[in-house]
Amino acid sequence: MHNPLESCGHVPGQISRSQEDDVKAVGSTLWVIAEGYIPSRGIEGDRALESHEAFCLLNTGAEDAHLEIMLFFADRPPVGPYRAVVPAERTLHLRANDLDDPEPVPRDTDYAVKIASDVPVVVQHTRLDSRPENFALLSAMAHPVV
Amino acid sequence: MHNPLESCGHVPGQISRSQEDDVKAVGSTLWVIAEGYIPSRGIEGDRALESHEAFCLLNTGAEDAHLEIMLFFADRPPVGPYRAVVPAERTLHLRANDLDDPEPVPRDTDYAVKIASDVPVVVQHTRLDSRPENFALLSAMAHPVV
Amino acid sequence: MHNPLESCGHVPGQISRSQEDDVKAVGSTLWVIAEGYIPSRGIEGDRALESHEAFCLLNTGAEDAHLEIMLFFADRPPVGPYRAVVPAERTLHLRANDLDDPEPVPRDTDYAVKIASDVPVVVQHTRLDSRPENFALLSAMAHPVV
Amino acid sequence: MHNPLESCGHVPGQISRSQEDDVKAVGSTLWVIAEGYIPSRGIEGDRALESHEAFCLLNTGAEDAHLEIMLFFADRPPVGPYRAVVPAERTLHLRANDLDDPEPVPRDTDYAVKIASDVPVVVQHTRLDSRPENFALLSAMAHPVV
Repeated sequence: MHNPLESCGHVPGQISRSQEDDVKAVGSTLWVIAEGYIPSRGIEGDRALESHEAFCLLNTGAEDAHLEIMLFFADRPPVGPYRAVVPAERTLHLRANDLDDPEPVPRDTDYAVKIASDVPVVVQHTRLDSRPENFALLSAMAHPVV
Repeated sequence: MHNPLESCGHVPGQISRSQEDDVKAVGSTLWVIAEGYIPSRGIEGDRALESHEAFCLLNTGAEDAHLEIMLFFADRPPVGPYRAVVPAERTLHLRANDLDDPEPVPRDTDYAVKIASDVPVVVQHTRLDSRPENFALLSAMAHPVV
Repeated sequence: MHNPLESCGHVPGQISRSQEDDVKAVGSTLWVIAEGYIPSRGIEGDRALESHEAFCLLNTGAEDAHLEIMLFFADRPPVGPYRAVVPAERTLHLRANDLDDPEPVPRDTDYAVKIASDVPVVVQHTRLDSRPENFALLSAMAHPVV
Repeated sequence: MHNPLESCGHVPGQISRSQEDDVKAVGSTLWVIAEGYIPSRGIEGDRALESHEAFCLLNTGAEDAHLEIMLFFADRPPVGPYRAVVPAERTLHLRANDLDDPEPVPRDTDYAVKIASDVPVVVQHTRLDSRPENFALLSAMAHPVV
């Protein structure tokens, strides 16, 4: 049977073009998530399973990414910018539940998100909803604008 | 440990290029959702948990977005346009369950959606399905055409 | 409070540029779904809740769309084409479970899908998985190639 | 009632332009998944239902695709490349749980993924989460960079 996981000899110390490409920043500098909602109810006492939303961010580049996050609502002006840093060659799964400056994200409230970065990043949005003593997940790649 | 949520001084009243960009309309003016289906069954008596579909819309721009929504079916002509407005710098999570002009969206029926806007918006589609006394979620960014 | 559902007078019989646009075919002519899997287990005796996958197709144009669907597997050559038609201005939520010519889609088997159309369509992929007496949903817009 | 599954005569041996197109490699050569997380808990003793993540890969082309997969973390340097091959005209649903060279993917840990291929492929990301004795699914098309 074909084994898809090839065993390939890795040659340490050999600087190839491929490795230079490895630190290139990929993605976009402006992302939008139209579907935001944090349920106030859910499993409690277990951070992994409490109802939450995450903005999953990846910075593949060699420079830190500085983010400005604006939140939009149905019936009042936008709030922000919230600020965050995704270090070079790191991922950050930022929980909307943890944002508090300039103000916490209200629960049980429709909102939307615009994320601007000074270098290209990739953004994916996930919700874990544990309201009815079960739970459900949704996820969508955010929409890249530029 | 690295704290991703930087504390940054915010300087009120300073009009920067970044703030002008903040009211730029981003996204597309034509979006399509191919997967539409509202289950007739589900949890009752709790609007948050009843089976529903939402078209989550974000208008980041300075002008109101006027939408025309067409619904497509398997065995009869398209219905619409349904009309809605997403005010400037606001989000609207529009429930398909609530549409009723020119007619309600039939339950337990395959349908699809085309959303045209006079200014760029972003559209995300979500379903909460609470049929079997549990529940499940799905979400996908809609497909931007132009 | 702002009512997003504007009541707008509809003028029947007025042929506008907007109505001509309404029958324009939008989307792409080649779509790919990399994640295919139909569980053999699930809720039985209820077509709506049995484990299934659907290719949700929308044809917004004035001409019927003729599809050729190829299925790819891990350890044998591709199978197909399966053929289907999405009539003009109609949606078709085609269940992979129902395909049987040239052969049924095997259950509990990883597969992937390529859908070619003679006119632009939009494709979204959904799975309802009701294996463990509960159920879960996933959905993703397919990847448009051209 | 309209039958969308047309019965069409298939003419074996007739080499058409369409069949040549069938072995064209479609997709992109660089894909990113920002949301990675393998729960350590879940249903046990049933490979199909244990908590897992899969990178679903499709190679529609006539040449094997050689992949280099880099994993990114929140607080340490990237790990990889993991290597895999998607044979010509095959799909590979690669479980992140099974990766072990250069090291296993840690459980209960935020990570992100960059997949580079020498020929175009399509990548979709799926998680099955069976932690709380129920289960949930999420899936998103990965983000194509080039």
